[in-house]
Amino acid sequence: MQNSKISVNGRLYSRSERPVVVVCIDGSQPEYMTQAMAKGSMPWLKRTLENHGTDRIADSVVPSFTNPNNISIVTGVPPSMHGICGNFFYNRDTDEEVMMDDTQFLRAGTIFKAFQDAQAKVVAITAKDKLRKLLGYELKFTEGSAICFSAEKADQTSLHENGIENVLEMVGMPVASVYSAELSEFVFAAGVKIMERERPELMYLSTTDFIQHKYAPGTDEANAFYQMMDAYWAQLDEMETVITLTADHGMNAKHDDEGNPEIVFLQELFDQWYGKENARVILPITDPYVVHHGALGSFATVYLSKKVDANDAIHRLRSLDGITMALSGAAGCRYFELSEDRLGDIIIVSGLKTTLGTMQERHDLSALKLPLRSHGGTTEQKVPFLSNRPMPKLPPDMHLRNFDAFYASLNYAE
Amino acid sequence: MQNSKISVNGRLYSRSERPVVVVCIDGSQPEYMTQAMAKGSMPWLKRTLENHGTDRIADSVVPSFTNPNNISIVTGVPPSMHGICGNFFYNRDTDEEVMMDDTQFLRAGTIFKAFQDAQAKVVAITAKDKLRKLLGYELKFTEGSAICFSAEKADQTSLHENGIENVLEMVGMPVASVYSAELSEFVFAAGVKIMERERPELMYLSTTDFIQHKYAPGTDEANAFYQMMDAYWAQLDEMETVITLTADHGMNAKHDDEGNPEIVFLQELFDQWYGKENARVILPITDPYVVHHGALGSFATVYLSKKVDANDAIHRLRSLDGITMALSGAAGCRYFELSEDRLGDIIIVSGLKTTLGTMQERHDLSALKLPLRSHGGTTEQKVPFLSNRPMPKLPPDMHLRNFDAFYASLNYAE
Repeated sequence: MQNSKISVNGRLYSRSERPVVVVCIDGSQPEYMTQAMAKGSMPWLKRTLENHGTDRIADSVVPSFTNPNNISIVTGVPPSMHGICGNFFYNRDTDEEVMMDDTQFLRAGTIFKAFQDAQAKVVAITAKDKLRKLLGYELKFTEGSAICFSAEKADQTSLHENGIENVLEMVGMPVASVYSAELSEFVFAAGVKIMERERPELMYLSTTDFIQHKYAPGTDEANAFYQMMDAYWAQLDEMETVITLTADHGMNAKHDDEGNPEIVFLQELFDQWYGKENARVILPITDPYVVHHGALGSFATVYLSKKVDANDAIHRLRSLDGITMALSGAAGCRYFELSEDRLGDIIIVSGLKTTLGTMQERHDLSALKLPLRSHGGTTEQKVPFLSNRPMPKLPPDMHLRNFDAFYASLNYAE
Repeated sequence: MQNSKISVNGRLYSRSERPVVVVCIDGSQPEYMTQAMAKGSMPWLKRTLENHGTDRIADSVVPSFTNPNNISIVTGVPPSMHGICGNFFYNRDTDEEVMMDDTQFLRAGTIFKAFQDAQAKVVAITAKDKLRKLLGYELKFTEGSAICFSAEKADQTSLHENGIENVLEMVGMPVASVYSAELSEFVFAAGVKIMERERPELMYLSTTDFIQHKYAPGTDEANAFYQMMDAYWAQLDEMETVITLTADHGMNAKHDDEGNPEIVFLQELFDQWYGKENARVILPITDPYVVHHGALGSFATVYLSKKVDANDAIHRLRSLDGITMALSGAAGCRYFELSEDRLGDIIIVSGLKTTLGTMQERHDLSALKLPLRSHGGTTEQKVPFLSNRPMPKLPPDMHLRNFDAFYASLNYAE
């Protein structure tokens, strides 16, 4: 009954003789792949799932945003344990609104770090640089056994900071715009090259949801994006790897039939209900890349002054059209497994078509050329959980989460 | 919106001007207090709850055993975060069965430690010594602001190890037997003296369930025990304190109508199903004080050799009388918020009257003078959550746990 598994944050991971590649496809609502397969755009995935692959749906973390989910995937645990509860938060201690992209906010170690400590080679590549520092937390880059960089800053890598240099030369692609499909393609092109050259035990490839924010499942643009990925996965598959595909969150149209966004401006409401300066609305979707979504998502949190009765505000919120959940911070953190010191006094989730904003004038939607598509709520919680390997012994009674991707791949892929 | 709350394991705690006393009444099935109050044995509690107190029921941690719940109460988080998932576990790394009573197994800091760091005075007194080291984790005893000792070893305290000396003299009681009501009484007698002398900001008083293992709610012996506690709580109340009463777990009769224990001997079953040496059954209720219960409770975990198909075993277990849950380790740990590296491949919970054993010959029930009463399952998860103060703003949507005792007392007691 003894074993040599690696323990990370209380969970056990087997070593793998084949490289394990986990792909986090940012914003990959399950219909993107089912529709691309139906149209013949993903021949490798279709064949793989029909023959011997694993085809499941998992629950992401809510808030269904990029940072909390990527960090859950690489630590194997919910935000209550790793502390990254949004892309952005209000720091009560310092009275500042800050990006949650720094390792000072991390409260749990990564699977990569534990595997590197056990002499495994590990690789993490992310499209956007905002995740790089978190993914590379505690890795020792000078030992030659860890690589971590972003496509966004692929021209600036060093052995000391990233465990790799001359990435552009290796990949043979220029640095792509942060608002492009090529930024994600760069991740896969680099992954394939590194898999050929280094054959690491663990590889993590994380894309950006630029395409998904703009184009619905089944559109030509979306299908082309998934076709591109399918071709790279086929190459990784030929190298005898375990590939597990999941997403940080789904993506839905957040507008009415005319294409106008449906937005509840929370700061305006609180100012109206309780006067100014008594509530601070935080939108944890906020990140430096707001052209995607104008900082509009389906999850918000509100900090209240002592003058405001939280229960009164919750009752008012619950009566509003488009609001599906309004919970006390205590209840919401318990329900969604978040950390209270990273969230406010109220947690709000909006419905399928509705997003949450602060005040009309603070959201610049002029950059949105197409009707708003976004995420953040429970309506974007269902994500794909696919693998090129069968996992018949994956416990059938287990509530599957996207952050089980490494766990399932290492312990149950056959 | 800025605040000066203390953050502990992601949760926020306000400072309190009045001392906060949390009492963990070991094995206090809610009926003990309702029946004692009905019989007039708890005049202070009855009056308090009728006038202005808080009267709620909370969920304990499952396994509903002493160590996981006491540690959850003093850390404010479930075992998945603090690591203490039983009184006893099988260490896969070292291939040994060990007591989980050492700080090396703790993965989270305590509320006491965070408050001491913020210049508060903190006191923790436990009946049995098995909890002392865990409760005192990281406290600095030489600074005069922390006290932690057990009634069991009250004659051996020192300033260096416990932050207090001459406890017997202070209390005016001799050291009591570990199998006695007096061991718990000592905890309260000491608590009252220390409250008078030191007026700490936080005090934790944790008893032993010797009485509850022997006597049902409403019996004279049980009522006398609760009457004793009621008198001490009245004294603490007079000192202008916030007192919150909860329990680590409930307690139920685990026998048939003739008083014979109803036991499923799991090791015998596994040996029969799969041959010897292919399964190791662990009963996490096991502690050094087995006269209480013969190591029989309603929760067990099983480690399997590679030859055994866990799903087959789960199906067999689910068909047995008296077994209410049989889950994979992965599913059970997710459901009950436990750590996989502290539990086996299968988690088993038995019903109201049924306990789980290993093999008949390994359980010495000769010391049980009365029909078996025990705990460990979901049938012992409901526990009292009472306070001498109203908590009208405690969020009504929050799923209340016994490990919210300090949280509710510090943040919501009026």
